[in-house]
Amino acid sequence: MKKLNVGIIGYGFMGRTHSNAFAQVNHFFDVPYQPVLNTICARNLERAKGFAAKWGYQSVETDWRKVVASPQIDLVDIASPNDTHAEIAVAAAQAGKMVMCEKPLGRNAAEAEAMVRAVESAGVANMVWYNYRRVPAVMLAKQLIDEGRLGRVFHYRAKFLQDWTISADLPQGGEGLWRLDLSVAGSGVTGDLLAHCIDTAMWLNGGIAEVSAITETFIKNRKHNLTGQVEPVGIDDASLFLARFDNGSLATFEATRYARGHKALYTLEINGEHASIFWDLHDLHRLQYFDHNDEGRLRGWRSVHITDSDHPYMKHWWVPGLQIGYEHTFIHQAADFLSAAGEGKSAAPTFRDALLTDRVTDAVLASAKNRSWQTVAGQKEAAC
Amino acid sequence: MKKLNVGIIGYGFMGRTHSNAFAQVNHFFDVPYQPVLNTICARNLERAKGFAAKWGYQSVETDWRKVVASPQIDLVDIASPNDTHAEIAVAAAQAGKMVMCEKPLGRNAAEAEAMVRAVESAGVANMVWYNYRRVPAVMLAKQLIDEGRLGRVFHYRAKFLQDWTISADLPQGGEGLWRLDLSVAGSGVTGDLLAHCIDTAMWLNGGIAEVSAITETFIKNRKHNLTGQVEPVGIDDASLFLARFDNGSLATFEATRYARGHKALYTLEINGEHASIFWDLHDLHRLQYFDHNDEGRLRGWRSVHITDSDHPYMKHWWVPGLQIGYEHTFIHQAADFLSAAGEGKSAAPTFRDALLTDRVTDAVLASAKNRSWQTVAGQKEAAC
Amino acid sequence: MKKLNVGIIGYGFMGRTHSNAFAQVNHFFDVPYQPVLNTICARNLERAKGFAAKWGYQSVETDWRKVVASPQIDLVDIASPNDTHAEIAVAAAQAGKMVMCEKPLGRNAAEAEAMVRAVESAGVANMVWYNYRRVPAVMLAKQLIDEGRLGRVFHYRAKFLQDWTISADLPQGGEGLWRLDLSVAGSGVTGDLLAHCIDTAMWLNGGIAEVSAITETFIKNRKHNLTGQVEPVGIDDASLFLARFDNGSLATFEATRYARGHKALYTLEINGEHASIFWDLHDLHRLQYFDHNDEGRLRGWRSVHITDSDHPYMKHWWVPGLQIGYEHTFIHQAADFLSAAGEGKSAAPTFRDALLTDRVTDAVLASAKNRSWQTVAGQKEAAC
Amino acid sequence: MKKLNVGIIGYGFMGRTHSNAFAQVNHFFDVPYQPVLNTICARNLERAKGFAAKWGYQSVETDWRKVVASPQIDLVDIASPNDTHAEIAVAAAQAGKMVMCEKPLGRNAAEAEAMVRAVESAGVANMVWYNYRRVPAVMLAKQLIDEGRLGRVFHYRAKFLQDWTISADLPQGGEGLWRLDLSVAGSGVTGDLLAHCIDTAMWLNGGIAEVSAITETFIKNRKHNLTGQVEPVGIDDASLFLARFDNGSLATFEATRYARGHKALYTLEINGEHASIFWDLHDLHRLQYFDHNDEGRLRGWRSVHITDSDHPYMKHWWVPGLQIGYEHTFIHQAADFLSAAGEGKSAAPTFRDALLTDRVTDAVLASAKNRSWQTVAGQKEAAC
Repeated sequence: MKKLNVGIIGYGFMGRTHSNAFAQVNHFFDVPYQPVLNTICARNLERAKGFAAKWGYQSVETDWRKVVASPQIDLVDIASPNDTHAEIAVAAAQAGKMVMCEKPLGRNAAEAEAMVRAVESAGVANMVWYNYRRVPAVMLAKQLIDEGRLGRVFHYRAKFLQDWTISADLPQGGEGLWRLDLSVAGSGVTGDLLAHCIDTAMWLNGGIAEVSAITETFIKNRKHNLTGQVEPVGIDDASLFLARFDNGSLATFEATRYARGHKALYTLEINGEHASIFWDLHDLHRLQYFDHNDEGRLRGWRSVHITDSDHPYMKHWWVPGLQIGYEHTFIHQAADFLSAAGEGKSAAPTFRDALLTDRVTDAVLASAKNRSWQTVAGQKEAAC
Repeated sequence: MKKLNVGIIGYGFMGRTHSNAFAQVNHFFDVPYQPVLNTICARNLERAKGFAAKWGYQSVETDWRKVVASPQIDLVDIASPNDTHAEIAVAAAQAGKMVMCEKPLGRNAAEAEAMVRAVESAGVANMVWYNYRRVPAVMLAKQLIDEGRLGRVFHYRAKFLQDWTISADLPQGGEGLWRLDLSVAGSGVTGDLLAHCIDTAMWLNGGIAEVSAITETFIKNRKHNLTGQVEPVGIDDASLFLARFDNGSLATFEATRYARGHKALYTLEINGEHASIFWDLHDLHRLQYFDHNDEGRLRGWRSVHITDSDHPYMKHWWVPGLQIGYEHTFIHQAADFLSAAGEGKSAAPTFRDALLTDRVTDAVLASAKNRSWQTVAGQKEAAC
Repeated sequence: MKKLNVGIIGYGFMGRTHSNAFAQVNHFFDVPYQPVLNTICARNLERAKGFAAKWGYQSVETDWRKVVASPQIDLVDIASPNDTHAEIAVAAAQAGKMVMCEKPLGRNAAEAEAMVRAVESAGVANMVWYNYRRVPAVMLAKQLIDEGRLGRVFHYRAKFLQDWTISADLPQGGEGLWRLDLSVAGSGVTGDLLAHCIDTAMWLNGGIAEVSAITETFIKNRKHNLTGQVEPVGIDDASLFLARFDNGSLATFEATRYARGHKALYTLEINGEHASIFWDLHDLHRLQYFDHNDEGRLRGWRSVHITDSDHPYMKHWWVPGLQIGYEHTFIHQAADFLSAAGEGKSAAPTFRDALLTDRVTDAVLASAKNRSWQTVAGQKEAAC
Repeated sequence: MKKLNVGIIGYGFMGRTHSNAFAQVNHFFDVPYQPVLNTICARNLERAKGFAAKWGYQSVETDWRKVVASPQIDLVDIASPNDTHAEIAVAAAQAGKMVMCEKPLGRNAAEAEAMVRAVESAGVANMVWYNYRRVPAVMLAKQLIDEGRLGRVFHYRAKFLQDWTISADLPQGGEGLWRLDLSVAGSGVTGDLLAHCIDTAMWLNGGIAEVSAITETFIKNRKHNLTGQVEPVGIDDASLFLARFDNGSLATFEATRYARGHKALYTLEINGEHASIFWDLHDLHRLQYFDHNDEGRLRGWRSVHITDSDHPYMKHWWVPGLQIGYEHTFIHQAADFLSAAGEGKSAAPTFRDALLTDRVTDAVLASAKNRSWQTVAGQKEAAC
């Protein structure tokens, strides 16, 4: 098995999930590469050293340019805040490295387009960590749709509900809170949460043609941790939109950090002519499935416990009845990337796939601003 | 449509459910009889008058013997406490009346046997109000079993959990509390709650061969409302038993009034070779169904919302998606009784059916007392 | 108790639910009136006679004008298709009758305004059968909100999902299918289903300020049962909208008859600063409640089984743990109407309350047509 | 951090879960030891080499005596079939090694007693992998009980339902199927599944005083993979018992591999005077909690999503809302063992704790055989 030297940028929440994926993937999956935790790069040297000790990184760096330039590194994995994605990814691609990037790809489609151009010009394997595609239940949903079980789709419904920013005392910006800082994050829940919903939706149900959105910032001013000042909040706290897909189905999408009682409730539902599917992240190991072909008086939503060996990815884990958790989705994604990379390919969602999501989030924000329906820049056009 | 004059004994909780069934049955079911609320009989004249006014009974009586003797009365319905069942039922049968009796039939099998002898000798239509058989979801379960969908049955599980007697301040005996008085009720939860579980179980899964039981009285002394004295509590507060059915399946049964958080949680589950069924009274309009014949990766418990016109009884009610409630089970039972009576027959469970349940509860109490396995007196023997 | 002679127009689904409410209300509620089922009026004389026999109506009529004109009639209850509501209601009010009307009040706000003018000029008691307000769980939600438990509200979410018109073979128009006929119904799911969601929403969360909507007719042509011809379908099969309430909260609303697997899934959720509430019609006897004031590690959505005597309306029914069903909501509404009428008052929602809902549905349809945000005509203006 | 050299015996299902625990524990927990995957020992050399490559074991062995004797090894972890536990554990303890043993400790209490004597004589740190104690939701249940929130306990209910042996074509014995071989496993579901239920139960609710049990072998003969012959099946396929705890509460316990529709449904429920708790393994990241101290009309079972930082173990994982899975319980147990070992102590459940479970399972099997109530050998006596 070939070694693949990984240089990761960022030691936050996503630095941990990615590191875990690299550490675990060979324990459970037969893939052509063995990732080696070569370098962790982050601004705070002391904390980076601690992170390296915990995960076994061989070296520590504070300047990402050195990671990108290092001949030892095969793969650059970007797990740092959104405002760093584009610059690092472009440089890494130009240096001929494989590139993985945490979502969203760019803070907007313009950044994402530059990133797509870079990896496609360089011809390097790339992938964006929209990890929820690799939930076994969601992957099973994809299989069912691809097999034509739903028939014509009428409705799509997705929401991502959190409640962690309701307190007016929560500061914005700085360590651990950059998601509330518009300049770093690019947007609020639109890029953070809706982007997940949109990525899954287009993968399952095709392109989104047009949107009508509304956004709100419920708490208008918060103390900024970097300046120490109370400053206007720039991000959207909540973002809701109606959509029409290319296939004619209608949709509601909603994301918020003000839904008391929900921590990370990402739910999706698809209603087709013959069958319907529902899934939620709070019980990610279940798929709800309704099949109209069932005998009439015995039709009902099936609560499928996705733990059997014939469920996607599950033969690699334990025995039927025993559930997996959140971080496994990253391990699955690492496994798929390494398998693809073994054949010189990228894994989905590629940078180009993720660009499409940025175009929808751009349209959502524009629609909310303009109070009008907004057409989404098409998937098929030569974008960049 | 022929009129059927009803004389009901008892204006308590069950007096209300039965009266409602008689009042409603013709609104929703085409049956050969129209029940007429002729006479309400109860000890307290003033309260009986109030009950009569509310439900439209034409006359009020305080002596059940007059009801039984009245030539106006076609049907005697016994909704009074358990210690009155046998005497009234025997007299009513001897007077040639149709007889309906609230469960349990007798306080013990000896009483029940006398009642069976009386109705069978007189040849009068009879029925015991084990109403849960007429929950549409439970009736559907019966249909599925009769169609052979479960295959060989391995396990049966039933429990009936309440929590209304946990407080030590609750008195025993007297109006509204006779269920805590051994002399009136005959037993505690064994006859009150387990009897329901046993009736349904034998109907769905056949005879019970043997039992090993344990009972407990958690609060040993309570004030008695009739005497005003603190007296030892005679009833069983909780009653649990293991059982082997005639078909070889194993079972656990449990009833208690000390299960904090449950008001009337009657649940049953049957595990067969090919399929399993689960139902609970707290959401009585749903049946949980698992079919092993479903495609492997899509197997899951189906939550069937029992509101469609092809579900038992449901075409008589509203439209799909709209649930019915508790009292409808009595209306269904009245409809089935009246249909059967139109053909000169009894409706299940007949007195004889209910005798079998009394034999099981007798065996349960004996087993708990003797701390030994107890064989249940067989279904097929000439009992009385 | 005073008799109240009821003349009902219509013997369809709603004719049954209203008749049942009048037949049952005195069995369970102490109210100052006893409704008498005086007259059933419908176009088909034979069917009307059958309906009268089943429910005990004393007389049958085929011309609603005679009912309105009859000095015997105290209350006119309109349970006929939407296109008849305005004319009957106005005439009944002018004749000095109490008037109850099935929802929606008018096919549009213009009709509804005329109806409001009529009942207010005549000073007659009036009410619209938006029955879901009287689900005990929903009434409890109202109490919690009125007590200030939610604090500032951020989000409201409602949907009403059905699947009964997915088949392209289903005809439109005529007996039992008038809800698919634009000229009779006024709109599709907007007036039929969304109107329920909107009525409850404004009752719970205040006025709706503005909406952005999308509608769709998935099956463009259907055979019309009255003409025998295949004709364009005029109604909306699905209707979705975003809304901003007067209190600043954001909302998604959706109704459809193309959501496979759902029969009558009306759900609502409210997220407040301190607490959240969720309810769905498929299990109408439960309220989901999340209280942020609970101790941190024990916070969770409570599944409250609404069957206790301290829950709204429930002391009138059975004992804790035993659920009620759909039709009880109409009985509750009848009880509230009769109580109010006893004091010479109307019961909510009055015609004026229901007019506000028609204004929102008008705005929804206009927004969908114009592809623009639409301001809702305000609640406080002198409307008519 | 000190290195702790691990020699593991067995590469089956439990070999994987233990290896994963050792590989992961330092990534998420600060413990005084770093486990080093030193040696994997198993009978099949080729497969052992494959296992070593996958998990990074430094050496491979086929004779467990060499592992026990090796001066390099600090900790012997027994993950091999039940019939090997006692001999290995005793030898390892005598060699002064720390010892971890997969459950059940012995095939019976006699074996377990020898093992307790060995570790206690040698004074070595020891632990048995009853991993379900370390489910965060179960640990939270323990905290609530210890805080006195339940008050007097009335009822305990546990079951462990599987369905993987229903087919008569399934062979018994040999690789992957030793759990069906009486001589290797010691018993069927009693030692395999009930043992888990009993361990948790005594930890949460104290000692079990007496039991009445029934067992069944549904498929009487199966082909044995080692002999190639059809042979009588010696194990119990299902095992049910009633119990009385030392604290006076009553219980039902049940385990089976014939419950169609359930893969690994371990559920437990405790009903106390003031509160109740329910948990199930199929959704292990949730705890159902009912608190009678809640305001009356808002009482309901809370579905607590155990993903917050104030939930046991969860601050070591991700962010609120994101669930963990099955294998995490082993990582928690490894962390607790290593913490305890750092202080020269054992972690619960120790060998002595696990001996108590073997005594209950012995009593269950004896009760089923003798058809009588069986007293459990007490916890406090000098056992060995």
